[in-house]
Amino acid sequence: MADYTFYTNPMSRGQIVRWALHEVGAEYEQVLVDWQDKPEAFLAANPMGKVPTIVHHQAGADRVVTEAAAICLYLAEMHPEASLLPNDAEMADYYRWTFFAAGPIEQCITSRALKFEPSAEQEGMAGWGSFDRTMRTLETFFSDRTWVCGERFTMADVYVGSSIDWGLTFGILPPSQPIVAYAERVQARPAYKAAKAIDNELIGKMRK
Amino acid sequence: MADYTFYTNPMSRGQIVRWALHEVGAEYEQVLVDWQDKPEAFLAANPMGKVPTIVHHQAGADRVVTEAAAICLYLAEMHPEASLLPNDAEMADYYRWTFFAAGPIEQCITSRALKFEPSAEQEGMAGWGSFDRTMRTLETFFSDRTWVCGERFTMADVYVGSSIDWGLTFGILPPSQPIVAYAERVQARPAYKAAKAIDNELIGKMRK
Repeated sequence: MADYTFYTNPMSRGQIVRWALHEVGAEYEQVLVDWQDKPEAFLAANPMGKVPTIVHHQAGADRVVTEAAAICLYLAEMHPEASLLPNDAEMADYYRWTFFAAGPIEQCITSRALKFEPSAEQEGMAGWGSFDRTMRTLETFFSDRTWVCGERFTMADVYVGSSIDWGLTFGILPPSQPIVAYAERVQARPAYKAAKAIDNELIGKMRK
Repeated sequence: MADYTFYTNPMSRGQIVRWALHEVGAEYEQVLVDWQDKPEAFLAANPMGKVPTIVHHQAGADRVVTEAAAICLYLAEMHPEASLLPNDAEMADYYRWTFFAAGPIEQCITSRALKFEPSAEQEGMAGWGSFDRTMRTLETFFSDRTWVCGERFTMADVYVGSSIDWGLTFGILPPSQPIVAYAERVQARPAYKAAKAIDNELIGKMRK
């Protein structure tokens, strides 16, 4: 049995987790989840019925992890040999920007895609403030650094990079120079390419 | 100089971070941020202009952390002596539910407070699926455990507990038994009480 069972759908945030699995070199068994007919073992693991979900088979105990960002950070911890964990000095940026992507960026993209924008009075309540404020913060951040934690690629880049990559692909994030340059560095990762090749092939088959 | 500068406003998610600071026993200097007149040092640290924000003063380098959940996890790492970090077996739940609170729960509460609900067709796109699905998942989870990671209180409870406490206080989360019982355990923490006492006193002064 592989170490991980990976419940996914190629057209979902499962793409983020596949990339993470490849970055750490994990052995995984993939289970494709059809939106209309979800496997029972999957719903037992995650009653939300959302992909991606992983089950880590550990000596007698199965550990379930859901939420793409959580899975990324979990995998980094389980595979320290992949050197994707932050050191002491990198930790502030590692957590800050992973949650910035899981919170403000995710909410910016989702709210725009669903055609909902908070009014000026609602900005204080909305964790992301406003679309423009979030984008400016992101641009400023990436204008003088290579990766989230500085010069070294960490697991935070898998999640933050995926969020940005996705926002650009769907035409929701404005393609400003620092953001596009970062996305290009992300896309050049061998593990990114290997993971996308698998998901793109699966998407191709689904469309036939 | 205290180890941390803590930018906050008592009527904000800064309450979460104050509780976390008290849980780890950190020394901090508080800077209250007025929405209308934000200090320059604060905007330099966080161009989003959002509280809570902390600056950790470390031998010659200032580390900025934003996003309430990120600050919680960061503080747990910086203060291992507080024993709020997960062990190997607790790590899946630790990350899963912290991001579940930062993602689905946060989006549920915010979208309901802002009077926006995704339509049935939009549920696939929305990371939180639907309000009811998120609530059912949360209730099921807390129906057979004391804390997020099982029997032991960890930093994940500061963030997840704060989200639930806040959702119940504002009447947005339905007060089902497992959720209310968990919130009561949370409210009984000495550090929770100490932190809330400070914020409530500050709120009282602001209202005079």
